[in-house]
Amino acid sequence: MGSDSDWPTMQAAAVMLKEFGVPFEARVVSAHRTPDLLFSYAAEAAGRGLKAIIAGAGGAAHLPGMLASKTTIPVLGVPVQSKALSGQDSLLSIVQMPKGIPVATFAIGEAGAANAALFAVAMLANGDPALAQKLAAFRQAQTDKVLAMKLPEV
Amino acid sequence: MGSDSDWPTMQAAAVMLKEFGVPFEARVVSAHRTPDLLFSYAAEAAGRGLKAIIAGAGGAAHLPGMLASKTTIPVLGVPVQSKALSGQDSLLSIVQMPKGIPVATFAIGEAGAANAALFAVAMLANGDPALAQKLAAFRQAQTDKVLAMKLPEV
Amino acid sequence: MGSDSDWPTMQAAAVMLKEFGVPFEARVVSAHRTPDLLFSYAAEAAGRGLKAIIAGAGGAAHLPGMLASKTTIPVLGVPVQSKALSGQDSLLSIVQMPKGIPVATFAIGEAGAANAALFAVAMLANGDPALAQKLAAFRQAQTDKVLAMKLPEV
Amino acid sequence: MGSDSDWPTMQAAAVMLKEFGVPFEARVVSAHRTPDLLFSYAAEAAGRGLKAIIAGAGGAAHLPGMLASKTTIPVLGVPVQSKALSGQDSLLSIVQMPKGIPVATFAIGEAGAANAALFAVAMLANGDPALAQKLAAFRQAQTDKVLAMKLPEV
Amino acid sequence: MGSDSDWPTMQAAAVMLKEFGVPFEARVVSAHRTPDLLFSYAAEAAGRGLKAIIAGAGGAAHLPGMLASKTTIPVLGVPVQSKALSGQDSLLSIVQMPKGIPVATFAIGEAGAANAALFAVAMLANGDPALAQKLAAFRQAQTDKVLAMKLPEV
Amino acid sequence: MGSDSDWPTMQAAAVMLKEFGVPFEARVVSAHRTPDLLFSYAAEAAGRGLKAIIAGAGGAAHLPGMLASKTTIPVLGVPVQSKALSGQDSLLSIVQMPKGIPVATFAIGEAGAANAALFAVAMLANGDPALAQKLAAFRQAQTDKVLAMKLPEV
Amino acid sequence: MGSDSDWPTMQAAAVMLKEFGVPFEARVVSAHRTPDLLFSYAAEAAGRGLKAIIAGAGGAAHLPGMLASKTTIPVLGVPVQSKALSGQDSLLSIVQMPKGIPVATFAIGEAGAANAALFAVAMLANGDPALAQKLAAFRQAQTDKVLAMKLPEV
Amino acid sequence: MGSDSDWPTMQAAAVMLKEFGVPFEARVVSAHRTPDLLFSYAAEAAGRGLKAIIAGAGGAAHLPGMLASKTTIPVLGVPVQSKALSGQDSLLSIVQMPKGIPVATFAIGEAGAANAALFAVAMLANGDPALAQKLAAFRQAQTDKVLAMKLPEV
Repeated sequence: MGSDSDWPTMQAAAVMLKEFGVPFEARVVSAHRTPDLLFSYAAEAAGRGLKAIIAGAGGAAHLPGMLASKTTIPVLGVPVQSKALSGQDSLLSIVQMPKGIPVATFAIGEAGAANAALFAVAMLANGDPALAQKLAAFRQAQTDKVLAMKLPEV
Repeated sequence: MGSDSDWPTMQAAAVMLKEFGVPFEARVVSAHRTPDLLFSYAAEAAGRGLKAIIAGAGGAAHLPGMLASKTTIPVLGVPVQSKALSGQDSLLSIVQMPKGIPVATFAIGEAGAANAALFAVAMLANGDPALAQKLAAFRQAQTDKVLAMKLPEV
Repeated sequence: MGSDSDWPTMQAAAVMLKEFGVPFEARVVSAHRTPDLLFSYAAEAAGRGLKAIIAGAGGAAHLPGMLASKTTIPVLGVPVQSKALSGQDSLLSIVQMPKGIPVATFAIGEAGAANAALFAVAMLANGDPALAQKLAAFRQAQTDKVLAMKLPEV
Repeated sequence: MGSDSDWPTMQAAAVMLKEFGVPFEARVVSAHRTPDLLFSYAAEAAGRGLKAIIAGAGGAAHLPGMLASKTTIPVLGVPVQSKALSGQDSLLSIVQMPKGIPVATFAIGEAGAANAALFAVAMLANGDPALAQKLAAFRQAQTDKVLAMKLPEV
Repeated sequence: MGSDSDWPTMQAAAVMLKEFGVPFEARVVSAHRTPDLLFSYAAEAAGRGLKAIIAGAGGAAHLPGMLASKTTIPVLGVPVQSKALSGQDSLLSIVQMPKGIPVATFAIGEAGAANAALFAVAMLANGDPALAQKLAAFRQAQTDKVLAMKLPEV
Repeated sequence: MGSDSDWPTMQAAAVMLKEFGVPFEARVVSAHRTPDLLFSYAAEAAGRGLKAIIAGAGGAAHLPGMLASKTTIPVLGVPVQSKALSGQDSLLSIVQMPKGIPVATFAIGEAGAANAALFAVAMLANGDPALAQKLAAFRQAQTDKVLAMKLPEV
Repeated sequence: MGSDSDWPTMQAAAVMLKEFGVPFEARVVSAHRTPDLLFSYAAEAAGRGLKAIIAGAGGAAHLPGMLASKTTIPVLGVPVQSKALSGQDSLLSIVQMPKGIPVATFAIGEAGAANAALFAVAMLANGDPALAQKLAAFRQAQTDKVLAMKLPEV
Repeated sequence: MGSDSDWPTMQAAAVMLKEFGVPFEARVVSAHRTPDLLFSYAAEAAGRGLKAIIAGAGGAAHLPGMLASKTTIPVLGVPVQSKALSGQDSLLSIVQMPKGIPVATFAIGEAGAANAALFAVAMLANGDPALAQKLAAFRQAQTDKVLAMKLPEV
């Protein structure tokens, strides 16, 4: 993510990956303040065996797109809710990538962070039956939780 | 996609997949007009060996999210440019998924369709060195093309 | 509605229906987390004698449209105010339905929930003179309340 | 509708109602230029046996809401696509009604007009089995049409 | 204004008119809940000697436009800040009037209310030198106040 | 207006004023390219006997507000439809004036230009019975025109 | 800036300039309430040796553009976050200047104010090696700060 | 600029610089397709004696911000009008930079490109009296052109 101020949002991704037992690393990499780190991080990602990068950023959110420009492994972008424009700037800066360099974009804020992690799990589950089973169980538990919801009397 | 009127947009995905030699099927599945097909398509996707679904839709674009609700394989959503709102409705309907069911969203229109395909290639390339090489070559060719661009004199 | 977190909004519909003595049931049905329930609920609605379904949802709000895809009884959609985009995503996801499958959409938030209920009352009142009279009385009382408003001195 | 310039949009409603054999009248009633007609039209609607009013308008679209303020029969609003703002003004002017006076709102433009008619059919079908059957057949034909769509080779 | 809940906004107009000694009346007139009062109020305005009407409303704000449809005296509209959309709906519902029926629109919220009053003063000052002088003095005092502002040390 | 490219929009105001026999002058005054003219024009307006200024501008539309800052006579602003943002920038630049300096704002584009003229007529008609009668006749003719509209058969 | 209420935002520019030892003056100049001061301030800026003007304003933010119309020295605009529209109006009013009169625009709010100052430093640093070095050091410190950020355990 | 398809917009900057006799180079540098070139271009800019960089880009427009992250010389950003969102995405992606790395942003499209060049001229003119004179003459000619505009008779 671009700053430790994005952590309250992005930790939802970390929590989800941990829940699935998927190993991950959490790093602050700022597109604008640490561009060299961004470049080396992306350039070395495949060689280090990373299977995907989840990148959260707000405002003029360039981190996901620039990571994607420097690696061919899947980049998942999370628009962090910004102060003035509530993440509309973050969303458009991440999702409107030009033809040729994709960034998979998720919802603004915490829901998007959690879903980016779930999507990464789904990608990995394609070749990992045990993980696929965990994902199916997670989905079933989620369904059961909704089915068990009770509404108060009016 | 939700209608054959989405084909001019979505064929960019098909063309890209064909270019990479990735087998795919192209189907019209309408969330609102063929909901049962949507459900059976999504429910059978994993069993039929599909590794991902690219779903394009416009306006109140429910196709990608509903496919995602019925399968655990990765769903990639492409907002088709709509007539009145230029795809702002399509984008928000696809990307703002609630926590628990992710849809990886790409840019509005043809760029998004092509990028969804490229992202699918990147996912598959994680376990397929030959495809990874093709993707790297594609990216290099794309870079070379930009480097070769000439601007006219003013 | 799609989650019990929508209840603070949607209870305005329940309160209104109760006030008019119109029997109703309140259920949590999530388009994305309980799609099978959504389908069976909609498919059985007509047979169970339901005359209309009021569906509230937020963000990528697919519940009303997908219910409408599986039943021919009138579906009334209420956009729940979302966190980042204040319900603009909910509104567009519900109202911008394609030709062929209508969802009657109401205002974002509590006013929309109450109005969906009032609209359902108006539909039923077409064939129910007693209910029509109740509705007329409600409207008159509402008018009287405005007429009785007093503004403080400046 | 508010002007004969809205007819290209609103005729989609008329065509649909005619297709279902539902009797209707089409009138130009302008909220701003013929307010007295608007008032008398709405006030007399119930007495004349109208079961619903479909009202289309663009820009500062006050017609549907003001009709609703003067009658208790269901009012269905269609936002006509406006020149500068593509119907965003029309949509918000129609859908954001205050608590107490509902307007059932449909999509911007022709799709919304057709859907308002389909929704009116669905309302009437609640008490009319023959019409309900026609609606079911229409929906089935619509589904069949999508199922028969063929995509060209890439 | 459309409801006593608009008073916190609209009282800024009343305060301003009082400051200038311009006689006025403050009334709650709801377009949707008291349409008959709206009509009679507008129809009688000229005869009662009113020189202008300042109308504030929020959401689907039809009050100013409908007043304007029933009178030829100048109508000044104030978009009240709405809950979900912050007055964007109010603004578009008031300002986007069709050719033929003008509503002079001011800023969203309290600034707009105060300015509507100042504009009414300016209109009346055209034929009232004493009022014109008061307005000039008000403007000068306002200028002096800005000129006297001091910023703290950094 | 700010440029002769605004004339296709603003001539609707001139045509309307001419129709009512209200004397006017049409000038190009650019806030940004002729600021001194803007200042002198506004400063001399009252002394020259102008009763109102209609100012049209597009994009970062500063003309109406700056005129208003230099005169106490009523300023009527018309947002000209801009190329990229369709006049949304023009509208907000004109209408969102701070407390203290009002600009009466009308719809984006030609409708707004015509309505600004009609509003000026209404202001002048307050003290001019003959003009008031003309305005009433104009409104009646407009009503009659709508009443005479015929819709084609479906 | 246009009002002392903009100071909480604009002081970020002052703090930054002070940090770099760049001399500056902070003034309240309101486009609408002190237009003459605005004009004289801009007209005299070059003669007084000012190298740039940083202007912050909110809502219908005319200050930066009007300063730019009266001087040829660089004007830097900062959109202050407004109450109803969160600075969307401020941003468009500042950035959408017509061809011929540029205003360099920065982000909405405090970040934009700080960045306007940094940009002014960068301009001055072009001819001032010592300042250039300070700027480079600032940037390095900023980078180091990000590199030192630690995230908590999940 | 990010692609030769941006040239129709960006040539307005080149034409303007040429008109002022300011030497410049025009290059295609794509943030996403030639990130290494972007980095080396920015890193070497100061050493090569560049005084400013004008960068135009559309959609998820990362070029200006990433150049700014790698150099301390002033970066001027031009949002190119995009297909679906008319440059709203480009504008927000460029202007909403985080505190610490400024990008001076100009209007969407050709006006912005020309103005970025004019702003660069103004920066250079701070230390170049001849250029300052040229700029003053350009501005005077521009003013004269507006003053000479004639409107047709109505």
